[in-house]
Amino acid sequence: MKPILLLLHPGFEELEAIGPMDILRRAGLEVTVASTSNKLQVTGRNEISVVADVLLDEVARMDFDAIVVPGGPGVIELRKDVRVLELLKRFAAAGKPVGAICAAPLLLKDSGLLEGRRTAAHFTCREEIPDLEEKAPFVADGMIYTSRGAGDCVAFGLGLAARFAGREKAVEVAKSICLGEDSVP
Amino acid sequence: MKPILLLLHPGFEELEAIGPMDILRRAGLEVTVASTSNKLQVTGRNEISVVADVLLDEVARMDFDAIVVPGGPGVIELRKDVRVLELLKRFAAAGKPVGAICAAPLLLKDSGLLEGRRTAAHFTCREEIPDLEEKAPFVADGMIYTSRGAGDCVAFGLGLAARFAGREKAVEVAKSICLGEDSVP
Repeated sequence: MKPILLLLHPGFEELEAIGPMDILRRAGLEVTVASTSNKLQVTGRNEISVVADVLLDEVARMDFDAIVVPGGPGVIELRKDVRVLELLKRFAAAGKPVGAICAAPLLLKDSGLLEGRRTAAHFTCREEIPDLEEKAPFVADGMIYTSRGAGDCVAFGLGLAARFAGREKAVEVAKSICLGEDSVP
Repeated sequence: MKPILLLLHPGFEELEAIGPMDILRRAGLEVTVASTSNKLQVTGRNEISVVADVLLDEVARMDFDAIVVPGGPGVIELRKDVRVLELLKRFAAAGKPVGAICAAPLLLKDSGLLEGRRTAAHFTCREEIPDLEEKAPFVADGMIYTSRGAGDCVAFGLGLAARFAGREKAVEVAKSICLGEDSVP
């Protein structure tokens, strides 16, 4: 599999970014973390600064096999970022997986990717995503993978790992972090 | 409550550090993240770099009300770091809470803090900590709080938040990250 692109935006929710970064890399997958700002060091909603691998502007033309977007209040600004909305549309049009957690599924909505799709997201998105699924920590519909919030960070990572690296590998990762097979959605 | 000191060491497990940092700050607590190396930017086991607030050498004489240590392969080097072992002993002697997850409880063992204590840790610590508790994601015994591994990052954060900020506040945080009251250990 080609690398997975993960977007880091100012105001991102830290567990929602680190969950997939940590778990997908544990599953042996390559994750390229791209800053949506003009600096590699990006500060999240809880004042935790994480260093991205590259700037989004540098990788826009590189080839990735999936895209993952964490939530957090930074999503409000990201909804105005045409680069991000176009990128999401491009992945979906190519039949490539798109993962989003918490408030980030709103970006999928803005890109027209949620029509007729079962979707999880933060409960504060209820008005904008009326048929929100709020019981499951991970929802897969076609190539669209969504989770509710920071409390689902591990389930989000393991759910993506199962789709990208196979269920057997995801279970192996779950066991290495002291969880059972039933923790892999 | 005075700030909580969280140690960031090269090779730390990223979810185990971000879990308590994120959740304790959400609970309104002050967390000072100290790098045990001579640089603020510290790289974890999964090649994720996080920026600490201060260097440990700068804060050794500051006053904190609790200390939290994430695991990861970096713990192997940390066991040789006299500053860290002395710091843990000092917190325990002052009756201040000590939290450790995954391999980090080995540092508590080295500091003589685990004698007669119920302890959780990563299953690879079984030989060194013979009576390891492996069923619960969070174990509290006196002022010693331990968890098993990265899969417990949220339980570790919520368990600490309940002790440091009160159960009501921890439940409020759990709900904000889409989890139920029963997720607070």
